Amino acid sequence: MLGLGMAYEFKSRRRVEFSDTDMAGIMHFSNFFRFIETAEHDFFRSLGFSIWEKHRHPRIGWPRVHASCDYHKPLRFEDLVEIHLLVAEKRSKAITYQVRFRRLNGEAPEEVARGRLVCVSHGADGAMKATDIPEEIASKIEVAPPELLMSRET
Amino acid sequence: MLGLGMAYEFKSRRRVEFSDTDMAGIMHFSNFFRFIETAEHDFFRSLGFSIWEKHRHPRIGWPRVHASCDYHKPLRFEDLVEIHLLVAEKRSKAITYQVRFRRLNGEAPEEVARGRLVCVSHGADGAMKATDIPEEIASKIEVAPPELLMSRET
Amino acid sequence: MLGLGMAYEFKSRRRVEFSDTDMAGIMHFSNFFRFIETAEHDFFRSLGFSIWEKHRHPRIGWPRVHASCDYHKPLRFEDLVEIHLLVAEKRSKAITYQVRFRRLNGEAPEEVARGRLVCVSHGADGAMKATDIPEEIASKIEVAPPELLMSRET
Amino acid sequence: MLGLGMAYEFKSRRRVEFSDTDMAGIMHFSNFFRFIETAEHDFFRSLGFSIWEKHRHPRIGWPRVHASCDYHKPLRFEDLVEIHLLVAEKRSKAITYQVRFRRLNGEAPEEVARGRLVCVSHGADGAMKATDIPEEIASKIEVAPPELLMSRET
Repeated sequence: MLGLGMAYEFKSRRRVEFSDTDMAGIMHFSNFFRFIETAEHDFFRSLGFSIWEKHRHPRIGWPRVHASCDYHKPLRFEDLVEIHLLVAEKRSKAITYQVRFRRLNGEAPEEVARGRLVCVSHGADGAMKATDIPEEIASKIEVAPPELLMSRET
Repeated sequence: MLGLGMAYEFKSRRRVEFSDTDMAGIMHFSNFFRFIETAEHDFFRSLGFSIWEKHRHPRIGWPRVHASCDYHKPLRFEDLVEIHLLVAEKRSKAITYQVRFRRLNGEAPEEVARGRLVCVSHGADGAMKATDIPEEIASKIEVAPPELLMSRET
Repeated sequence: MLGLGMAYEFKSRRRVEFSDTDMAGIMHFSNFFRFIETAEHDFFRSLGFSIWEKHRHPRIGWPRVHASCDYHKPLRFEDLVEIHLLVAEKRSKAITYQVRFRRLNGEAPEEVARGRLVCVSHGADGAMKATDIPEEIASKIEVAPPELLMSRET
Repeated sequence: MLGLGMAYEFKSRRRVEFSDTDMAGIMHFSNFFRFIETAEHDFFRSLGFSIWEKHRHPRIGWPRVHASCDYHKPLRFEDLVEIHLLVAEKRSKAITYQVRFRRLNGEAPEEVARGRLVCVSHGADGAMKATDIPEEIASKIEVAPPELLMSRET
């Protein structure tokens, strides 16, 4: 059961821009990672936080320890994309996201890529070592149901 | 034993630029994938090919089906980086690279990240389906020794 | 007076993303040009066209011959930005845009930068030479009133 | 006459990468500005400074107040480019650079674009206001001869 005001997912939308493409006529594979980050930051904002809180003491950062993406189909200029972020794992100092890219401009939404991002809660000032996710944030984030995380769309 | 003119690795060098960094003061995690691609293209050039051959018929492209990176330490502005690309697997229609990032500006080279890229040989014109790697290219590429691929540096 | 269905401006909105920033903590100056392009393409879509029409014959491209930007104030992560594009000049083969960046998240919208983009209508296939803007497109685009183009906001 | 150890120009080299291109098959126009910055930072390093000096007190930054580029011909994937930076103007608090892009892979070097960058010496900590260029740096930088700055190559 979902706790009060807890969340395990967020859906961002974005249109593929000309500068996201390369000479092969498709979105450059590195830009999927920029899109993953956008969804992560939108997710944080949806919870009432910013990934970069100017006034939090001690300030924390979220360095990535792992990022990956499996590409099924290309994205092209002007494609409208849903970036569906799911919390796949939550530990005291780390969060893992699963991210699904769905192209929305066809007849039916179609999953074109699936990514994964693991980031660690870090003291941004000084020592730069892993630190517990602040309770205020951790209490709002829940792991998505396993059947959702394991579902295949393609 | 290495075949005549065959290769299983290449080392590129690159300096982290200001535009590669983000407000956390380190290289943005998505840019490691741009660096991986640079090493891949340098590797191809070292074999006498271009990843994008204008005059090859049929022309082939190398769409990525998987990309990943494990980040151990951050890279910073002006860091000199060695991008060490190794052929980890070679199939009739696909190549897998392992890529190691080493910071060179300290006392000793230090591995800061390790990535993986899987790409498929594709007909770039028309049907966009997987096709055998042209013999001319395949005959120059060899898989790196397993003990090299499995070696840990950190 | 505005012709039927003609337009001389468009306002896009965009949030500054983490990957748009650099280690100085502000949006990298090159990214203002990506934002300018976004507004240009949104403007085209608002007229019912795409900047890259798959089915137009002959197909045209819009190579840039000039781009510039004057920066008054920095943009920062999560700033909400209005990108106000105005048609500053229209010739048979070229269009000039003026683009104003306004930060919307303060008390009052504030102009933080002003750019200029000149692009030429080009045959995208074959000869790559300047060609008249297709009548179908030219008839929908009008030059903005001079007093609007000359107005200062800062 | 050139002062001892003074400089008014620098030439960087760079190869156009796949991720620098867009679906029109040429280098995206915004990336010329990243290349301009590379040349600026190389110029600083050639003088024995870094654009971002960790240990200078007070630390200074170089925010851009103007950037522009005129594009004559496109750059393509794997083109080898010389980025020739010239000091066009030097004031107590600001430097203006002229930057010429020459493609080197043809028979003769050919100017393909010319840019301009104006940046201001700024206190990077605290007040973020224009400040005199430190004497240590200013004394090494000289304005290029006018006939060089005004020479046309295309």
